[in-house]
Formats: sequence, structure tokens, C-alpha cells
Amino acid sequence: MNRLLRSIILATVAVTAQAADVAPAPNGIKLPPYYQDWRMIASSHRSDNKTLRVILGNDIAVDAARSGHTRPWPDGAILAKLVWTDKQHPAWPTATVPGNFLQAEFMVKNAAKYRETGGWGFARWKGLELKPYGDNAGFVQECFSCHKPVKGNDYVFTHPAVLPP
Amino acid sequence: MNRLLRSIILATVAVTAQAADVAPAPNGIKLPPYYQDWRMIASSHRSDNKTLRVILGNDIAVDAARSGHTRPWPDGAILAKLVWTDKQHPAWPTATVPGNFLQAEFMVKNAAKYRETGGWGFARWKGLELKPYGDNAGFVQECFSCHKPVKGNDYVFTHPAVLPP
Repeated sequence: MNRLLRSIILATVAVTAQAADVAPAPNGIKLPPYYQDWRMIASSHRSDNKTLRVILGNDIAVDAARSGHTRPWPDGAILAKLVWTDKQHPAWPTATVPGNFLQAEFMVKNAAKYRETGGWGFARWKGLELKPYGDNAGFVQECFSCHKPVKGNDYVFTHPAVLPP
Repeated sequence: MNRLLRSIILATVAVTAQAADVAPAPNGIKLPPYYQDWRMIASSHRSDNKTLRVILGNDIAVDAARSGHTRPWPDGAILAKLVWTDKQHPAWPTATVPGNFLQAEFMVKNAAKYRETGGWGFARWKGLELKPYGDNAGFVQECFSCHKPVKGNDYVFTHPAVLPP
């Protein structure tokens, strides 16, 4: 009941979301409202480009992740990857913590609508100003190309972090 | 309204929480129900002990973090640090991702109740079985001792990750 009621409330208030001022991606995908409040699915740290990431999901995605139904992820699932530059913790030098906010990346699952890109719609907003990435709708080929090696994981790099039951 | 209503609902259902089966910490702190569903405050990667962490907070903590009121954090704030072993991503070798779940660590702010340890109550549950850490209530001295160097940040290592407005 908890989850259902919260979903209803969030859906009700979503129409007044703060994301309304952010321009959509060139392929028409709009910034999902309240994505910062989504629940956690995983994190990662990339040494190649020195970035820290936290992967959040909407309720459909998190429910799928926590029940092990991610191959494939269900329609309606949205994954949000928030990306920061590496920063050394001032009081704990061997700890890397989030520095500048770089971008927010989204994958929106709709097997029919996005069939040409593995069932996923891609979008990215850059910087604190959340500027849409890509000059035209063709930008998704760049996203999809990078995700093709993980076709066996429904084109998703993220594996949900293990949590206690 | 969104936040308030959600808090009311979560408080209402908390009495039936799944955390009821987990033993309390030796100092009496109980595992906060639904902590896995809390919102994200930050993440970190420690190279000294090869662990990835995601820091979540209850509504009081997240509201404080996102409005910049963390010196001091308000009474009622609870920080949850979820810790996993490092794991190399199978398809992206330069990415470190969460491996085994190691522990969940909590800091509970109550300036009066926990005055002897900087206003914070400490607790930790280890492994997927969430076994309480510490042989007796004195275990908190170990926690507090490690946090003393960040007294200037209200004894908290975590700095909330920067997010778009």
C-alpha cells in the first residue's frame, strides 16, 4: 500500500513538476519530473573518465530491479544515471566523492516505441543548467552504439546493487 | 504537499515495517524501516578498503541536505551509508561497481540524547543478514573516534552531492 499510495501522490503532483522549465531532448524525451527523488539502484566509479555515478530508477524500474525482473526491464521503466567529476575527500584522501555535477542520463523502456534502439529511448541533460545533449534526434545512435556490447543485459550496463531482503 | 503527504504515509505504515525482524544495535538503535527507499544524498569510493558507498537519508536529512542546512544537521535527520565491495564491471573494465553487500551504517541526529558523541547516535548492521555490530553499547566510541576529525562538518564525512535545482 505504501508504494501504491506514494505512486499515486507523485503522479498527481507531477503535473506541476519543476522539470517543466527544462528543454526536452532532441528526440522529444522530456526530463522526468522529480527524478532526483527516485530510489537507488546502483552506483559506479569510472577510472577512465574519472567520474562517479549513482543510478536511480522510477518505481517501475526499482520494483523490477529489486524483484530481479530486468532481462528485459519492463515497459515504463526509466533509469537515471547522475554523473559527477571525481573529487578527493578533504578529510579522507583515499575516498573519492562527487565533485561537479556533469550530467543526468536517462534510459526509457518502451519495447515497441524504441524498437530501433533496443527498446530504449535515450536522453541526456548536461550541467547544472540541464542543457539537452545532441544536435538532432540522431544523437541516440551514439548512445545505442555504446550500449550494444551489453545487449545480453537488455542493453543496460547497470546491474542492480545487492541489498538485504 | 508531496513531501508532507509522503512522510505521513510512510510514518503510518512504518509500524509494519520489514525491519522488525532485525535485532537492534547494542545501544538500542533500531534499523530504520524502509531505509532502502530513502533518497540519495551522495556516493563515495574508498581505495583504502576497496568499497563503494551510497549515502541515503530520511526525509529530514534529505530536505536539510538539499537546502544546505547541514551545519548542524537538524534533529531527526538519519543518514544511511550502504557499503559494497569493489567489483570490476564485466563489460567495462575501468568501471568499479557494487559487489557483495558489506554493511549498512546509520547516524541518527539528536543533539540532546547523543550529546556525548557529537549529537549523533551510531549503528551498523553487517552483511545481508544485517547482524548488529558491536559487543556492547561502547562500540559507539569506535565510530565517534573515527568521526572526530570532521567535527567542523558536524562530525559527518558526507558532503551532499551537488544536484541541479
